[in-house]
Amino acid sequence: MKYLTNGITSVDGFTALGMCIGIKKGKKDFAIIYSDSLCSAAAVYTKNNVKGAPLYVTQEHLKDGKAQVIVINSGIANAATGKLGIKNAELICKLVAEELGIKKSDVLIASTGVIGVQLPMDKIQKGIKGCKDQLKKANDAAFAILTTDTVKKEIAVDFCNFSVGAMAKGSGMVHPNMATMLCFITTDADLTSDELKDCLAQSVEETFNMISIDRDTSTSDMVILMSNNRKKVAKEEFQKALDFVCLDMAKKIAADGEGATKLIEVTIRNSKSKEDSKKAAKAVIASNLVKCAMFGNDPNWGRIMSALGNSNIDFDESKVDIFMQEVQVVKQGVETEYDWENLSALLKQNAVAVIVDLNLRNGNNATAYGCDMSYGYVEINSHYHT
Amino acid sequence: MKYLTNGITSVDGFTALGMCIGIKKGKKDFAIIYSDSLCSAAAVYTKNNVKGAPLYVTQEHLKDGKAQVIVINSGIANAATGKLGIKNAELICKLVAEELGIKKSDVLIASTGVIGVQLPMDKIQKGIKGCKDQLKKANDAAFAILTTDTVKKEIAVDFCNFSVGAMAKGSGMVHPNMATMLCFITTDADLTSDELKDCLAQSVEETFNMISIDRDTSTSDMVILMSNNRKKVAKEEFQKALDFVCLDMAKKIAADGEGATKLIEVTIRNSKSKEDSKKAAKAVIASNLVKCAMFGNDPNWGRIMSALGNSNIDFDESKVDIFMQEVQVVKQGVETEYDWENLSALLKQNAVAVIVDLNLRNGNNATAYGCDMSYGYVEINSHYHT
Repeated sequence: MKYLTNGITSVDGFTALGMCIGIKKGKKDFAIIYSDSLCSAAAVYTKNNVKGAPLYVTQEHLKDGKAQVIVINSGIANAATGKLGIKNAELICKLVAEELGIKKSDVLIASTGVIGVQLPMDKIQKGIKGCKDQLKKANDAAFAILTTDTVKKEIAVDFCNFSVGAMAKGSGMVHPNMATMLCFITTDADLTSDELKDCLAQSVEETFNMISIDRDTSTSDMVILMSNNRKKVAKEEFQKALDFVCLDMAKKIAADGEGATKLIEVTIRNSKSKEDSKKAAKAVIASNLVKCAMFGNDPNWGRIMSALGNSNIDFDESKVDIFMQEVQVVKQGVETEYDWENLSALLKQNAVAVIVDLNLRNGNNATAYGCDMSYGYVEINSHYHT
Repeated sequence: MKYLTNGITSVDGFTALGMCIGIKKGKKDFAIIYSDSLCSAAAVYTKNNVKGAPLYVTQEHLKDGKAQVIVINSGIANAATGKLGIKNAELICKLVAEELGIKKSDVLIASTGVIGVQLPMDKIQKGIKGCKDQLKKANDAAFAILTTDTVKKEIAVDFCNFSVGAMAKGSGMVHPNMATMLCFITTDADLTSDELKDCLAQSVEETFNMISIDRDTSTSDMVILMSNNRKKVAKEEFQKALDFVCLDMAKKIAADGEGATKLIEVTIRNSKSKEDSKKAAKAVIASNLVKCAMFGNDPNWGRIMSALGNSNIDFDESKVDIFMQEVQVVKQGVETEYDWENLSALLKQNAVAVIVDLNLRNGNNATAYGCDMSYGYVEINSHYHT
């Protein structure tokens, strides 16, 4: 296993572009991922009942399990935009298809940004003209898909016999009930679109679906996986590679949550079932009060206990052990002796690990990924629209 | 109907005290509500699976539907305190009973504050001695039960043939799945404890259970209703009075949420069922993103639409109308023309009304109460423990 440097374009046959098309002032806001041959593809979509127009169009275009291009814009989500929104998303696919000389139905589309605003189609139409020349083996696209993200998120790995590249955006409205952000994954692993779909569903469940930044599941987000099928690989082997890549992306999204100063990982151990562990881990990671305590470097375990109580899982309070940064703070449900100052200093690190052991059954573990809640979260979200 | 001035002590036969017992530095932190005769009583409790010790003790003491005294402390919640926590709560009831010359089982107890810390029993024992002399017809208790609240919350109303008084605390960890704060209600309406229980359950459902400040349901909170049964009144008539009083308390709690700069009321109209309206109203009021937008005076209706989509109710996006401060911003699912500057100015008021009409069925309406999310929320909750 070897890391590669060009994200989604690290996989042979893929190129990309990221450019300013004029939706966001002076910032890259338009990206294309291009495969030089038709790909098998699979996607998972937000479970928000209000879905952005691009999701309907992508679902339609992916019915045959094939795709060659993904076009993405940031700045405007093209959600809650009615029939015009759908028409515009279709038109963008058509324009991109013409520019690149492929079929419109082989273009997938994603948008992220403000809800309820129509796309500036004149600017987009002009921008698409001639953009083919900008496609290259460098991933400017990873910048162009960001909104309130502070860093680009990408990974590319050579797994000897095949490779996988991914890029993602996250930041706000991230509380996965499926994939509440954008993530695009390229590979050359030779698998059918149904196999890709299976693998993606499994990876998403333990990675993207275990992130929460603010409990708000977005209208627009999706994960798309494309393969140009050039390398033979067993499905099981690919699954492991995909898990690895998705977990990396999920953690990067969590760490760069709006206003976040640190990544938080909450692991629940030994609950009555795997499902319980997941529910509890998500409940703790999503609690505003836990998140604020983490921002304040305060080992306020009472809030973790309260969040557990709210998670609707069955457990015995008097059996609970809680650890933060490997320091035990709760033993059998009550506070145990620890050095508060020392632990508070440990919580200042870039990543904080919380482990809650329910001591009920062996081996039912799950980890959720999130971030702290800072003044920055409020600042970004009280001023983002304007 | 006439407003009275002394909160819970406005009802004939009730007195109270609020004093510094030494849990919080230099602040009132200990309260007693005393009835000069045995009362019928009823209570509702948090649905958090982790419950504070006082809840177990109060439940036990209320088995006979009778009570004469409520003792409350703030500063420490006496939750996640194991067997010692229960023992301490029982001991406080015993000491108060001895001081007031009543039965221990007629004392109910409530605590609010930090989770996981034991009560300073020496201070409490000393403080209780001789406190009987401080009972009077003025409600200092309303101050003594506060934590991060900024104002005391009380009401007392003379409904001609009977009266009702109430005091409450709220502020943080408020997302009712039942009554996630403290509220104490006194009355002289002659109803059995079962009737009081019915009335309380019904009032709570539409008032306290429709508040959300931060989606965190506390371990400790409860609503207790006590009547000394001195005035004859029909149950239906009392129900209306209780609804009125509980709604007033609920709104005061929502408006004084941690860091809140304004009260927000979200009304969902014409959904498929009353239950759907409640679910949707709570989903919108609880969204961090909606709350931040309100703090920024930003009529960012896309976040309301997204929160609706996350509420898991069935609706047709293309039928949705949204109004803020009576200004229509969405018609049939898409943005309608409105004066942004003017509406933003209207959002600066102390109370903001959001109305979402799903246009599906007539008359299935519900309102939820909450507040905006400001820098103050983060400040309070990253520093509260320390």
